[in-house]
Amino acid sequence: MTDIAKRFTENPLLRPADLQSRHLGLTIDCLLNPGVFRFQQKVWLVVRVAERPAQQEGVVSFPVLDQAGQIKIIEIEKANPNLILSDSRLLRFENADYLTTLSHFRLLCSDDGVHFYETEGYPPIEGSGAYETYGIEDCRVTQIGKEYYLTYTAVSQNGVGVGLMMTEDWIHFDRKHLIFPPHNKDCALFNEKIGPKYYALHRPGSPVIGGNYIWVAESPDLIHWGNHQCIAMTRHGKWDSVRIGAGGAPIRTKQGWLEIYHGADEQDRYCLGALLLDLENPGIVLGRTDDPIMEPVMQYEQQGFFGNVVFTNGHIVDGDQVTIYYGASDEFVCAARFSIDEILKRLI
Amino acid sequence: MTDIAKRFTENPLLRPADLQSRHLGLTIDCLLNPGVFRFQQKVWLVVRVAERPAQQEGVVSFPVLDQAGQIKIIEIEKANPNLILSDSRLLRFENADYLTTLSHFRLLCSDDGVHFYETEGYPPIEGSGAYETYGIEDCRVTQIGKEYYLTYTAVSQNGVGVGLMMTEDWIHFDRKHLIFPPHNKDCALFNEKIGPKYYALHRPGSPVIGGNYIWVAESPDLIHWGNHQCIAMTRHGKWDSVRIGAGGAPIRTKQGWLEIYHGADEQDRYCLGALLLDLENPGIVLGRTDDPIMEPVMQYEQQGFFGNVVFTNGHIVDGDQVTIYYGASDEFVCAARFSIDEILKRLI
Repeated sequence: MTDIAKRFTENPLLRPADLQSRHLGLTIDCLLNPGVFRFQQKVWLVVRVAERPAQQEGVVSFPVLDQAGQIKIIEIEKANPNLILSDSRLLRFENADYLTTLSHFRLLCSDDGVHFYETEGYPPIEGSGAYETYGIEDCRVTQIGKEYYLTYTAVSQNGVGVGLMMTEDWIHFDRKHLIFPPHNKDCALFNEKIGPKYYALHRPGSPVIGGNYIWVAESPDLIHWGNHQCIAMTRHGKWDSVRIGAGGAPIRTKQGWLEIYHGADEQDRYCLGALLLDLENPGIVLGRTDDPIMEPVMQYEQQGFFGNVVFTNGHIVDGDQVTIYYGASDEFVCAARFSIDEILKRLI
Repeated sequence: MTDIAKRFTENPLLRPADLQSRHLGLTIDCLLNPGVFRFQQKVWLVVRVAERPAQQEGVVSFPVLDQAGQIKIIEIEKANPNLILSDSRLLRFENADYLTTLSHFRLLCSDDGVHFYETEGYPPIEGSGAYETYGIEDCRVTQIGKEYYLTYTAVSQNGVGVGLMMTEDWIHFDRKHLIFPPHNKDCALFNEKIGPKYYALHRPGSPVIGGNYIWVAESPDLIHWGNHQCIAMTRHGKWDSVRIGAGGAPIRTKQGWLEIYHGADEQDRYCLGALLLDLENPGIVLGRTDDPIMEPVMQYEQQGFFGNVVFTNGHIVDGDQVTIYYGASDEFVCAARFSIDEILKRLI
């Protein structure tokens, strides 16, 4: 057991029943994978809310958006021979893939980082346009100056890509479209320029050759990206053998950029580990944890919509202490603390 | 039969036996998929040369590059239970994918566009660095001003991405690294700015959700890319049902940007079709051919290293006439002419 996370005793902090579904006829099945930021002396979460109709016997039903942003419900008999239920998250029907739930983002704030509530005046953020008809997921928030940059997974029949939006006030959003084409997700922006360029971690995926690895890219303007370099691969036989992806924005330390990342194995068990990247050239990996620094061990991490998952894409840093907010079992929002120094000692 | 290509009677123009292998112990198995450009009053091809060792009974052997650019031969007994021979192009061994051949580029020129020969002083272009250890493939050449831009498929254990290099003299090359991360190929640059931006067609691929579709992206500098939009999908039940990808640089016509593209079906049969894109906004598709404009019908297109393939990534335009150079059966270089007007009439 190499888990060095100090979980909040209040976990889970948020459950699906804690929020109201926004859409008539839909229920919230999952609250998960929050982006995290500080704003107006509070800690805020951009929580992913995954909804679908209450499931009826013998039928699979799920929502999608049309390009005008209206919800449409698709219903398929489970006996239909053209239906393949891949896992609780994904299905295939008549040569097309779909998600079982439709996700949007909800803003919640907190005075103590433990108790979160909705505030009037900050509306939900919904998928929009042709590249988000299956929803938006797993938002990372990076603050650069006064601006907050949201990178998130945009899903549609076109594929799974990375969208970018900007805001100063969390009311008005400037959407910058797809910054990484399919198949890509888990994009975390660095919160400052390094030399003349901005940097991002991202996670392309391949149908053949290559794998689900972490890459770094650079940009003059956060909108156009190039010089893609692979910085971390999956490791055969280990806890991160099948896919890995960045967590929240990299944390600047004296030793380098510390990135907490997730890894999954053949059993789709998601744990957390860490990478250390060179301060001047984040394409250079200085260290990586061999064992996970956090594993799904609590009941709420092992049993839920998709069990055996701890997944983080947001945190708050206070000196040596990093508080991660994380999705547990793809259903609950939880929190845990790490000592940065302790993580650094685990690097090899 | 909807094939409107006027094939050269001299086809195939080039066969593997026409060139000398550059690498001791390797033989050229395929000459294919040339990029095409005009330079010094001649027509030039950037031919893809695919090499491997002569194959011995019971053993698969193939070359890869190390990061210093040195060739290493990997040999695997065919009886090895960890070996999966996917098709003549690809194999899987111990959790990793490999290519059966290693490709580089060779420059050939011609005074008449039919007879091509090597000229001293223009060395081959080889894979270089960590992202090209499995070789470089299928170069598109776009001339913008005095500069020639080469976009090509860069293959390594990191995945299949798109590399960019620039040259003015075809002797010195400025390598700009990966402009599109995996999985991506079939990248064709537009040969002029549209408004303030450069544009490219590219072909991302997805392990799940989405498919092998043609996308357009924009860039301020040809190096950093954003605003990715899907402009053409595969069409179920048609000749382009499984994968499609751009050919050479889009051709400016009065009606729009004409793009000759390839499509493959479930039987891996590759044909050519065409797309017409809006002159001012190439994200808008004005037309697409329903049937192929060229199909593998000649013996050299049906029988070879990988049969039933016509694949183009380069052409020369003279008024209404476009001469495409194309790979036939992944083994031979051939040419054919189209009337642009005739292609435009096939659009629906």
